[in-house]
Amino acid sequence: MSLIDHTHRPDALSWVASANAADTDFPIQNLPYGLFRRAGSNESARVGIAIGEQILDLKLAAAAGKWSSAVQVLLQPLADGDLNTFMAQPSAQRRLLRHAIFEALLEGSKQQAALSACLLPQAAAQMAVPCRIGDYTDFYTGIYHATTVGKLFRPDNPLLPNYKWVPIGYHGRSSSIGVSGGTVRRPLGQLMPPGAEAPVRAACKRLDHELELGLFVAGGNALGEPIAMEDADEHMFGVTLLNDWSARDMQGWEYQPLGPFLAKNFATTISPWIVSMDALEPFRTAFAHPESDPQPLPYIDSAKNRAEGGYQIELEVWLQTEAMRAKGESATRLMRSNFKHAYWTLAQMLTHHASNGCNLQPGDLLGTGTQSGPEANEGGSMLELSNGGKQVLTLPNGETRSFLLDGDAVGLRAYAVHEGARRIGFGECVATIVPAPSL
Amino acid sequence: MSLIDHTHRPDALSWVASANAADTDFPIQNLPYGLFRRAGSNESARVGIAIGEQILDLKLAAAAGKWSSAVQVLLQPLADGDLNTFMAQPSAQRRLLRHAIFEALLEGSKQQAALSACLLPQAAAQMAVPCRIGDYTDFYTGIYHATTVGKLFRPDNPLLPNYKWVPIGYHGRSSSIGVSGGTVRRPLGQLMPPGAEAPVRAACKRLDHELELGLFVAGGNALGEPIAMEDADEHMFGVTLLNDWSARDMQGWEYQPLGPFLAKNFATTISPWIVSMDALEPFRTAFAHPESDPQPLPYIDSAKNRAEGGYQIELEVWLQTEAMRAKGESATRLMRSNFKHAYWTLAQMLTHHASNGCNLQPGDLLGTGTQSGPEANEGGSMLELSNGGKQVLTLPNGETRSFLLDGDAVGLRAYAVHEGARRIGFGECVATIVPAPSL
Repeated sequence: MSLIDHTHRPDALSWVASANAADTDFPIQNLPYGLFRRAGSNESARVGIAIGEQILDLKLAAAAGKWSSAVQVLLQPLADGDLNTFMAQPSAQRRLLRHAIFEALLEGSKQQAALSACLLPQAAAQMAVPCRIGDYTDFYTGIYHATTVGKLFRPDNPLLPNYKWVPIGYHGRSSSIGVSGGTVRRPLGQLMPPGAEAPVRAACKRLDHELELGLFVAGGNALGEPIAMEDADEHMFGVTLLNDWSARDMQGWEYQPLGPFLAKNFATTISPWIVSMDALEPFRTAFAHPESDPQPLPYIDSAKNRAEGGYQIELEVWLQTEAMRAKGESATRLMRSNFKHAYWTLAQMLTHHASNGCNLQPGDLLGTGTQSGPEANEGGSMLELSNGGKQVLTLPNGETRSFLLDGDAVGLRAYAVHEGARRIGFGECVATIVPAPSL
Repeated sequence: MSLIDHTHRPDALSWVASANAADTDFPIQNLPYGLFRRAGSNESARVGIAIGEQILDLKLAAAAGKWSSAVQVLLQPLADGDLNTFMAQPSAQRRLLRHAIFEALLEGSKQQAALSACLLPQAAAQMAVPCRIGDYTDFYTGIYHATTVGKLFRPDNPLLPNYKWVPIGYHGRSSSIGVSGGTVRRPLGQLMPPGAEAPVRAACKRLDHELELGLFVAGGNALGEPIAMEDADEHMFGVTLLNDWSARDMQGWEYQPLGPFLAKNFATTISPWIVSMDALEPFRTAFAHPESDPQPLPYIDSAKNRAEGGYQIELEVWLQTEAMRAKGESATRLMRSNFKHAYWTLAQMLTHHASNGCNLQPGDLLGTGTQSGPEANEGGSMLELSNGGKQVLTLPNGETRSFLLDGDAVGLRAYAVHEGARRIGFGECVATIVPAPSL
C-alpha cells in the first residue's frame, strides 16, 4: 500500500462539519467527483466534490480559492463541467488535485473563508451522469453469481470451462445509463411463456436488479496497443455503484447465441459520485485464485495484483416498496456481500479488455458483474434470492417478492472498510420502477 | 415507392463530369455524406457530399452557394463538421437539403460557377468516421450466415429456436470503429488450442472479415418510449458498408455465455460515405418471410414493411494479398451476395432495438450481420467460404487461404441496382491486416 499518504489519515477532520459525522459517506478522506447543477436551474452542469452533506462547486472554487498554477490548470476543465479531460490526466496529476482539495478542506485551512461560499448542499443539487461514457462494458466477475445463475440453466455444469481463465465480459449500452434518483420503466419485450409454441410481446414479468460496481477508465490506450498488467492502475480513475437492471424472461428467450441485448439495455443506474482510486488505496487487499483453480495467464497476472489487486468494499441492496413508502416505512436490506469475492480484479478486467488492442478511452465504464456472496442469502439479484423465481421472499412488512414490482425502489449501497482506515461510502444508487407502456 | 421524386431520375446529369460516368459510385442520384479534411492538412474536419470523383465541401458551399434560408440553416452544422445535428433533423428537412444540392449540381444549374470552387478531388481528401457514434449494435440478419455458422457448432440444429422470431443483436464497440483505408492489427488473445488442457495467449490464427451493411440512426427516441414500426423510416438516416472483423479462435473460446467480446472489438471498418435512405428509395423491394416460417409479431410488422421494407443492394468481398500488391495485380473477388436475402429488414432491426424503450440517438450505428447468400460460394466470411477452415480457397494467382494473413487487404463493395433506376454505389470499405504486436 505504497500510496497511502496523509490524505488517508483516519483522524483528519474538515471544517465542513457534516464531513466529520461518523456515518457520513463523504469524509475528507473520500473526495469523490460528480456532475451537478442547482436543482431547478438550467445552468450548465459543473463538476463538484462531495464533502459531508455538501458539494464543493469546482467552478466557484477555481475562482475563489488560492491554488498553485498546476492545480489551477487541472481545475479549469472541471469548472467547465468536463470531467473526461481531468480523467485523462496522469495519476500523479490527479493525485495533485486530491491533495490540494484535501488541504483546502482540512480543519484550520486558510481557504475556509473563501471556499465556504463555494458549497452547495447536496439536497439542493440535481446530479447527472458524471462524464461522457463512450463505451460501457459489463464483466461477470462474481463467481457465486455465475455459479448460481449457471445452475438454473445447467445443473450439472454451472460454470463454463472458460470462466476461470477468461474475465468474461460483453458490451453494454451507453445511452441508457442514468444516474441515481430517477425512474426505470418496466420494458416491453418478446417473451416465450413456459410451454408455449410462439413468443408473445408483453411487459417483462421477471424484472430484476444486479448489484455491481463500475470502474471508470482514466487515460486510455491507442488502438492496437494492449495495456500491460503492471500499468493497469495508471488507467483506473475511480469507482461507482452500478445497477444492471435485467429483464430475466426477455433474457432467457433472446440471449442465445450472442448474449444479453434488450434484456439489459433499457436501463443501467449508477451512483452520482465517482470514488477515486486514490481514495480507495487504503482498502486494497491481497488477491489470489484458490490453489486448486487455474492460475491467471501472465498477461493478467502481476506481483502487485497478487499483493493488493483486491478491494474490500462492503455491498448492500435495499428495497422500498410502494406500500412501505406510503406508510413512511424505510427500505429493508435484501442482502450484503463484499467485493473481495470477485473472481477477477479491476486491474485484470481492464487489462484483459485492452489485451487484444481494443482502445479504452477516458470515461469508459466497466461494470464488474453481479457481486453475490457465497451464501444463498447473499445473492446480488432477485433471480438468485428467489432461486429463479421458485421461492418468494417475505419482506418485514409481510409483502412478498420473487421479482420486482412497479413502485419498488431498489437502492445499492457500498462502503470501503479496513482496520485503521476511515470508512468511506459511495452514496446511493437508487431508482424506482414505473409501469410499462401500454401495448 | 411513394418517395421517388425527380432526384431519382435516371437520366439526370451533373455539371461535375465524373458524376456522369457509367461506372461511378457517386452519380447525382446518390449524394452521400462523409467527413473529410484535405490530406496532410490539420484543418478541422468538415462534411462533404461525394459527386463523381469530387467532394462538394459543404463549408465552402454554405458560404459560396445561393441557398434558401431553410437550407442555409441545415448547412450550418454540416459546415462545422457536425453531421449528427443534421442527422437528427426530420426526414422532410433532410430531403430538403438533398433537393437543394441536387438542383445545384444538376447540369445547367446557375450555381455551377460558384460551386466549382467548392470541389475537392476525393483523391486529395483524408476521410474520417463520418459522425459521432454513441452506440454501435450488431445484428445477425443473415440467415444463411447464421445457418452455416450454426452448423459448424450444432450440425443437427443450426438455427436456434429464437432466430425466426427475434432480430438477434448485441452491442459492439464504438471506440474501435475506423474508416476505410487504414490498417487492422491482428489481435493477441486467449486461444484454446484443439486438444489442449489450458488456453494460451497468442496471436489470432483465424482472422476473418464479415460483410455487413451499417444503418445510421437519424432522430432518436426518448428512453422508455418504443418506436412504432410505422415510424421506423423516419428514424433511419443512411447506410454504409461495414466489415465486422472477427478473430474466430478467440471467439470460440470466449463467447459463452455472454456473446462476442474481444473477438470482435479490436476493429470495425466502415466505408466513409453514408448513402442516405432518400437515395436508396428506388431500390426498395417487397419483403416477406417464407410462408412456412413464423410471421413477424405485430410490433415488427407493417404493411409498408411488407410492401417495400427490403432493399436490393448487391454486395461483394474483394481480397488483395501482399503478393498481389507487390506484382501490381488487382484484387480478386471472393464472393457476391445481395442484401435482399436478409431475414429482417432495416426497419425491423431499428424497431426491435427500441421496442423495450432503449433510447437510440442520432449517429448510432446498427450493423446488419453478415450478408451471405444461399450458395456455398456466397459466404460473407472466410469461416463460411473455407467451411470452418477445413477447405482452402485457391486464389487466381495460386495462393491459398482458409483465414486471412498479414498483408491481406479486404475490400467490401456494394451497389444498389434496380431496373429503371440509376445504379448507385457505396464506395470502398477496405483495410489491410498488419502483424500482431510481439508477445
